[in-house]
Amino acid sequence: MAGSSFGQIFKITTWGESHGKALGVIVDGVPAGLKLDEDDIQQFLDRRKPGQSKFTTARAEGDQVEILSGVFEGKTTGTPISLMVKNADQHSKDYSNISHVFRPGHADYTFWEKYGIRDYRGGGRSSGRETIGRVAAGAIAIKILRKLGIEIVTYSKAIGPVEIENFDADEITNNSLYMPDAAAADKAQKYLEECISNQDSAGGIIECRVTGMPAGIGDPVFEKLDANLAKAIMSIGAVKGFEIGDGFEAAKSVGSENNDEFIVENSSVVKATNHSGGVLGGMSDGSDIVFRAAIKPTPSISQSQQTVDIDGNQKAIEIHGRHDPVIVPRAVVVVESMAAITLLDSLLLNMSATMDGVMDFYN
Amino acid sequence: MAGSSFGQIFKITTWGESHGKALGVIVDGVPAGLKLDEDDIQQFLDRRKPGQSKFTTARAEGDQVEILSGVFEGKTTGTPISLMVKNADQHSKDYSNISHVFRPGHADYTFWEKYGIRDYRGGGRSSGRETIGRVAAGAIAIKILRKLGIEIVTYSKAIGPVEIENFDADEITNNSLYMPDAAAADKAQKYLEECISNQDSAGGIIECRVTGMPAGIGDPVFEKLDANLAKAIMSIGAVKGFEIGDGFEAAKSVGSENNDEFIVENSSVVKATNHSGGVLGGMSDGSDIVFRAAIKPTPSISQSQQTVDIDGNQKAIEIHGRHDPVIVPRAVVVVESMAAITLLDSLLLNMSATMDGVMDFYN
Amino acid sequence: MAGSSFGQIFKITTWGESHGKALGVIVDGVPAGLKLDEDDIQQFLDRRKPGQSKFTTARAEGDQVEILSGVFEGKTTGTPISLMVKNADQHSKDYSNISHVFRPGHADYTFWEKYGIRDYRGGGRSSGRETIGRVAAGAIAIKILRKLGIEIVTYSKAIGPVEIENFDADEITNNSLYMPDAAAADKAQKYLEECISNQDSAGGIIECRVTGMPAGIGDPVFEKLDANLAKAIMSIGAVKGFEIGDGFEAAKSVGSENNDEFIVENSSVVKATNHSGGVLGGMSDGSDIVFRAAIKPTPSISQSQQTVDIDGNQKAIEIHGRHDPVIVPRAVVVVESMAAITLLDSLLLNMSATMDGVMDFYN
Amino acid sequence: MAGSSFGQIFKITTWGESHGKALGVIVDGVPAGLKLDEDDIQQFLDRRKPGQSKFTTARAEGDQVEILSGVFEGKTTGTPISLMVKNADQHSKDYSNISHVFRPGHADYTFWEKYGIRDYRGGGRSSGRETIGRVAAGAIAIKILRKLGIEIVTYSKAIGPVEIENFDADEITNNSLYMPDAAAADKAQKYLEECISNQDSAGGIIECRVTGMPAGIGDPVFEKLDANLAKAIMSIGAVKGFEIGDGFEAAKSVGSENNDEFIVENSSVVKATNHSGGVLGGMSDGSDIVFRAAIKPTPSISQSQQTVDIDGNQKAIEIHGRHDPVIVPRAVVVVESMAAITLLDSLLLNMSATMDGVMDFYN
Repeated sequence: MAGSSFGQIFKITTWGESHGKALGVIVDGVPAGLKLDEDDIQQFLDRRKPGQSKFTTARAEGDQVEILSGVFEGKTTGTPISLMVKNADQHSKDYSNISHVFRPGHADYTFWEKYGIRDYRGGGRSSGRETIGRVAAGAIAIKILRKLGIEIVTYSKAIGPVEIENFDADEITNNSLYMPDAAAADKAQKYLEECISNQDSAGGIIECRVTGMPAGIGDPVFEKLDANLAKAIMSIGAVKGFEIGDGFEAAKSVGSENNDEFIVENSSVVKATNHSGGVLGGMSDGSDIVFRAAIKPTPSISQSQQTVDIDGNQKAIEIHGRHDPVIVPRAVVVVESMAAITLLDSLLLNMSATMDGVMDFYN
Repeated sequence: MAGSSFGQIFKITTWGESHGKALGVIVDGVPAGLKLDEDDIQQFLDRRKPGQSKFTTARAEGDQVEILSGVFEGKTTGTPISLMVKNADQHSKDYSNISHVFRPGHADYTFWEKYGIRDYRGGGRSSGRETIGRVAAGAIAIKILRKLGIEIVTYSKAIGPVEIENFDADEITNNSLYMPDAAAADKAQKYLEECISNQDSAGGIIECRVTGMPAGIGDPVFEKLDANLAKAIMSIGAVKGFEIGDGFEAAKSVGSENNDEFIVENSSVVKATNHSGGVLGGMSDGSDIVFRAAIKPTPSISQSQQTVDIDGNQKAIEIHGRHDPVIVPRAVVVVESMAAITLLDSLLLNMSATMDGVMDFYN
Repeated sequence: MAGSSFGQIFKITTWGESHGKALGVIVDGVPAGLKLDEDDIQQFLDRRKPGQSKFTTARAEGDQVEILSGVFEGKTTGTPISLMVKNADQHSKDYSNISHVFRPGHADYTFWEKYGIRDYRGGGRSSGRETIGRVAAGAIAIKILRKLGIEIVTYSKAIGPVEIENFDADEITNNSLYMPDAAAADKAQKYLEECISNQDSAGGIIECRVTGMPAGIGDPVFEKLDANLAKAIMSIGAVKGFEIGDGFEAAKSVGSENNDEFIVENSSVVKATNHSGGVLGGMSDGSDIVFRAAIKPTPSISQSQQTVDIDGNQKAIEIHGRHDPVIVPRAVVVVESMAAITLLDSLLLNMSATMDGVMDFYN
Repeated sequence: MAGSSFGQIFKITTWGESHGKALGVIVDGVPAGLKLDEDDIQQFLDRRKPGQSKFTTARAEGDQVEILSGVFEGKTTGTPISLMVKNADQHSKDYSNISHVFRPGHADYTFWEKYGIRDYRGGGRSSGRETIGRVAAGAIAIKILRKLGIEIVTYSKAIGPVEIENFDADEITNNSLYMPDAAAADKAQKYLEECISNQDSAGGIIECRVTGMPAGIGDPVFEKLDANLAKAIMSIGAVKGFEIGDGFEAAKSVGSENNDEFIVENSSVVKATNHSGGVLGGMSDGSDIVFRAAIKPTPSISQSQQTVDIDGNQKAIEIHGRHDPVIVPRAVVVVESMAAITLLDSLLLNMSATMDGVMDFYN
């Protein structure tokens, strides 16, 4: 089936494999009249680029984006924006060791079972490179959200067992792990070095905080804002969990603690606390939207692992080559992008919520 | 916007408010020729019915389902099945204490901000009664899944801080909390009695295990099986988190532990462990699908809470009346239903995955 | 598959069979705050009611609509509106003559081939009674369109070979054929009497004119306003053709005649002519939207016809009972309803077309 | 909104403007395992290429397609197929005469009203070049349909007032007008020469015939096969009408003539006639599917026309340059492509129609 599109009014469709000619995305439903150039997008792609530290793959990806349609004289025209990144570094080296073998923790086996064929080069469609399209589209969504006064901050909350203890927004881009806590980042780096020397890999937790979201965005039943965020985030490879506000901790709490009281502050209704994470009944409640994603350890490790090949023979496999010992830092911008796309789509869908709004618009 | 539908090929559309005339669901896309009567559905509705123990509301809900269309001579015809439950107990008693006030932890404020109007009787559309439609539709999905050899077991894994320590499937329906561990159920009951005496409420964790799912179901990018499960489950009111397999624990693990090795067993490829929770790269991997949902404590508590009314005045509120001190037991069947709907839709969508499959079907 | 929903933001889902317990529709995405009661809807259902003249079936259908959800204190709340009409007259009389036989011109054979089962009573799901849901939903759309200054006039342009020669809007509701030309209506009535005496039936053409539609509604590529109107109208049973503006006549014209010149009138840009029928490049052009639907003759006739039964035996069939010799007059309000639903959905979708519009809405 | 996608399971998303860097399409949901190379697609693009006769524009379009993703070792992998054609001939010559003026019969004015900005070069997004994506995607659909025994023949039935009188399939590709009647093609050519000498343009009618479609494809209510065909065909620029089977003629007929009797032939149920055009109740009936599209005359003519500019000033305009005096011949392959995409999507969606089909598939 067609499973490469996301969003209803602001809709993205990604395409491309790790070692194909190119990857890209069609961003359809972008409101007309937005100033947009390749730099707006490139700066976000650069955040997911590898080779920025020893904990991310050394592969020299240029990942230069081209705008192929939908922008005229520097502005969006309302027609679909096609964004493409050529796969510069696609010299298909030797994949003979994995072409017939199902790597543990990867999608090799499930692709094979579903389709009976798979592009085994570099993970094919399930490669992290697929997220190039998401990030390119996310850059546009983020630019629009900012114009509406909505900002998103995303960072590594934990790398393996090392969790942040303080939050300093300025620190996020100061370390290659995107942690808002310099001391935790140091510890996490030591932990990662240990992983590397063990021929092993790590996971972690990404946290995202959205400020400025007006109340009432999202819908009450199946199109709840948090349900759509959950789908958006869980659709990113390697994400194994999603929680909003107090999340799994809320399950252990009691109502009198978990409920956020409403108070009046500067003549506005605000919540005294934010256990809800900014969503009540599937709609934004005016507080910051705060959610977390659990990322599993990179499945590619150079230790020997038991597996099976396509002919059903038991095999041992060692995966060498360029692999991030942790993908959390590079996934930060992917989580931010998917959040932005989801939020923007909800905002646009919300415009017809009331007769007053519709009447105002057309009169 | 239209936010009351879920699914693509097997699509459900729920409608109804807590104190309206009735609630229901349209189930569209049910394959023709399935034997179906009202008993098939009623037994699932009975599982979510209140009044089964002192921990669920005493409201006398009959909740008798009627099949209004789509079934002829005891079989589904392929046309939409309309299922309705009348609201027998809708004598709208006195709601004056909450009609102008935003209850903490509820969707009152967000409905007001979005729509400028809300049906305040019993929570209106965001009442737990909306799930009647989900469970009625889920009953049909579960019946079909069973015919395909797919079974779902769902239970309370934790009530507040009390977590199960053993798993005994037979015990699940032996206690009113749907816990598969009699000792834990006892402890949890004591904990809930304490909550009640404190005029407080509890949350918990629901776990769901699916057996018999073939490999390769779900899609690689945005329509990942786990992403759709996450949306389905997070769209249930009060759910604050979703995780699959090792979930948030995976974030602390290392690749060599988290990866599931493939082995050959009885000439079949199987996984030696199941940290993945049955999904790799968004597609089922042939192992059991195992996921969990975090449920927040019931927001309706009789303790006094600070809040604000629709005129912006600070107010104290005490919520009396029939309210579950914990909704986890009644939500078990809702989680199971949403899982079934998601899995079945994915199975039906998967039928056109390969040319061989399509050619076989039409030849 | 699920094929009973129409629309994206303003979405309707119909359900029900001719001789089931009831028929209905869920109208989801109605903006909140619209005054709505059952009378608003009933007056449209009464327009499609049979028994209004000797040319429509004598079946005594009460067709009283009930609002089951989505309206509170006389106003829409933004949640789905469930509308139901009970099948009062469902005494399933003797269908033995058609239960195993495929009636020519009906969907009996195609249902059988698709589903292997069919509710043969009164046409089942493909009965004209399915349009009750469309008309009930259309009534809501029309009420909203009027508030935006958009009016729709629909009428019979031809009954069989008898076409109108004059247009008098006031005459439309003066005759039972909904023709805007009294003389043509007289001729058409004589033609129909002849059909009846021949045990035969007639078709005709319905025309629809929309005034007040702002320019720029609809989308340039697949979601063209006229493409969506075509789908909406062709989805009505018995419609065999759709054309907009000059339609099939345009195919014979030349560019210099078919092009509508733009002129300035009262400081506004208007078209000097309206060969386009109010749509250019898939978007409304500010002129009246004018389209036509071709309706085939009622397939149920009492003449003997050759056909086949479900066991593959050749049979002769005579269809007696209550059948309109022409359905065109009763289909007028169905065409109007589907047009209204399509136009309203396009208007709501259009609200996010430009950055200026989005910024204005949220600031 | 996002309006550039079509189809549900087999979904295409087109992008690109006449004078942008490139145009293309993402084809998502293609079953895995289909042999596919660029030649399969190029032969269809060549059919819509201009410059094949004096009646189609002389613009030297290479229109070489590139497959950028979704094909591996010569076979489809089930992942989205990205197809791109570079705009070789995009030297944006002088558009100053139309950049501020609304051309009659074009979408200039409606784009301006909707978006407040438009890419005026060569029609931008509403250029006929947008159909490159449709034809490229259609080539894939047609290849699959053929494997299922389904063939589509499409041709010009009329050019302006000149209609075919005979049907000779072999003749279709013998003349540059794609008419299946050599004598009519001659007459039509003379008619077109006259149009050219009058600085005028012509329209026409395209007819499409599908053989081999199994019965029961399509759905009974909104997703009727003919409704989806109507949308598909009306979404092509310049199409003003759609009819199936006897279409508008059926409106004048009587039931006893219009009904197709069923008979047994070689132990199969067949229809004695085909007034229905192969669809009954929205589902294919096993006969040939036959439909027609009305194409308006090319709006670009070099005669002087009255119009208005973006500042509201009345202006005269003459449109010179490369323009087809008739687009019908080049639109033939576009109609065929959209038909194929619609039919294939319906076939794939139909696979879950019955429990028997689903059980067979998974057992």
